[in-house]
Amino acid sequence: MSQKKVVVEISARHVHLTHEHMDILFGEGATLTPKRDLSQPGQFLSEERVRLEGPKGAFDKIGILGPTRPNTQVEISFTDARVLGLEPPVRESGDIKGSAPVRIVGPKGYIDITEGVIIAKRHIHITPEDAQKYGVANKQIVCVKVGGERALSFDEVVVRVSPNFRTFMHIDFDEANGAGIKGCVDGEIIV
Amino acid sequence: MSQKKVVVEISARHVHLTHEHMDILFGEGATLTPKRDLSQPGQFLSEERVRLEGPKGAFDKIGILGPTRPNTQVEISFTDARVLGLEPPVRESGDIKGSAPVRIVGPKGYIDITEGVIIAKRHIHITPEDAQKYGVANKQIVCVKVGGERALSFDEVVVRVSPNFRTFMHIDFDEANGAGIKGCVDGEIIV
Repeated sequence: MSQKKVVVEISARHVHLTHEHMDILFGEGATLTPKRDLSQPGQFLSEERVRLEGPKGAFDKIGILGPTRPNTQVEISFTDARVLGLEPPVRESGDIKGSAPVRIVGPKGYIDITEGVIIAKRHIHITPEDAQKYGVANKQIVCVKVGGERALSFDEVVVRVSPNFRTFMHIDFDEANGAGIKGCVDGEIIV
Repeated sequence: MSQKKVVVEISARHVHLTHEHMDILFGEGATLTPKRDLSQPGQFLSEERVRLEGPKGAFDKIGILGPTRPNTQVEISFTDARVLGLEPPVRESGDIKGSAPVRIVGPKGYIDITEGVIIAKRHIHITPEDAQKYGVANKQIVCVKVGGERALSFDEVVVRVSPNFRTFMHIDFDEANGAGIKGCVDGEIIV
């Protein structure tokens, strides 16, 4: 079997918003302005920014990823959670039931969400073609090894297969810093 | 072979000081006041605190680990380094040549060290008895697996054997957060 390589990308703290919440934060009928395309097709970082306020601290200029979604979701790291004073669960994107609350502040208003803050479970977006080539299936948990002076192997990496994806692994900044990863690096699926 | 367990502890950012630097920061003849014993025999967290100032940011109330040492050394995480605006290397404790500079501020004065700031290389303190039992040697690089929802295996863990040690593995907060570790957990040496 040849190596099963996957590019590992770092996700910074960010927000996904509903249309309704966009209206409140940025004004009626406001839309997201794409600033930069992300690795996943159709996904983009917006020009717009928001502020996150927790019981203990706040972050300004938080990026919003577009397009808008059916549910507002905030993805942060354990380090961020400590600053904000929150205790979000580690979850897959979209699985926000009973997750942590936060205040999101925009130029035209704010919202207090009662759930929606998660620490993203490390995951691989993979095309059906690559999944077949690598012998992995949707929802499978795999292990991915990264090299370097802080080399480590991430267990508990969930595989998500879709024809709408490009093949990339996503980790957060705690995971990246713990692994000494500065930008994109190659990982290898080893289980 | 039975399991080779090691307790994994998290090291928060901290400082080691020389007598000379103690004099400057806390006044002539000042000594460290033990507040809490650490896992390694004779090592303690002090009541005294200092401020760290980098080109981009600062941290207050940084713990000083005693006793004093022949060289002043500052151990931070990549996350901390970004806040301070520093680029410290990943090094073993004591290996500070050419490492990063920082300003350390105490109640009676400050010092500008030109080197001494490192990101500690993940390591295991181990007694000669445990090293023999586990079949590991001083300076050996091993791999340690930790479980949980963010399970991972740390490669590049350096083993340090001494009769003055108690057997514990040390990681920093980035590594702990990346691994979802909140307090002390059991790791397993797997290579």
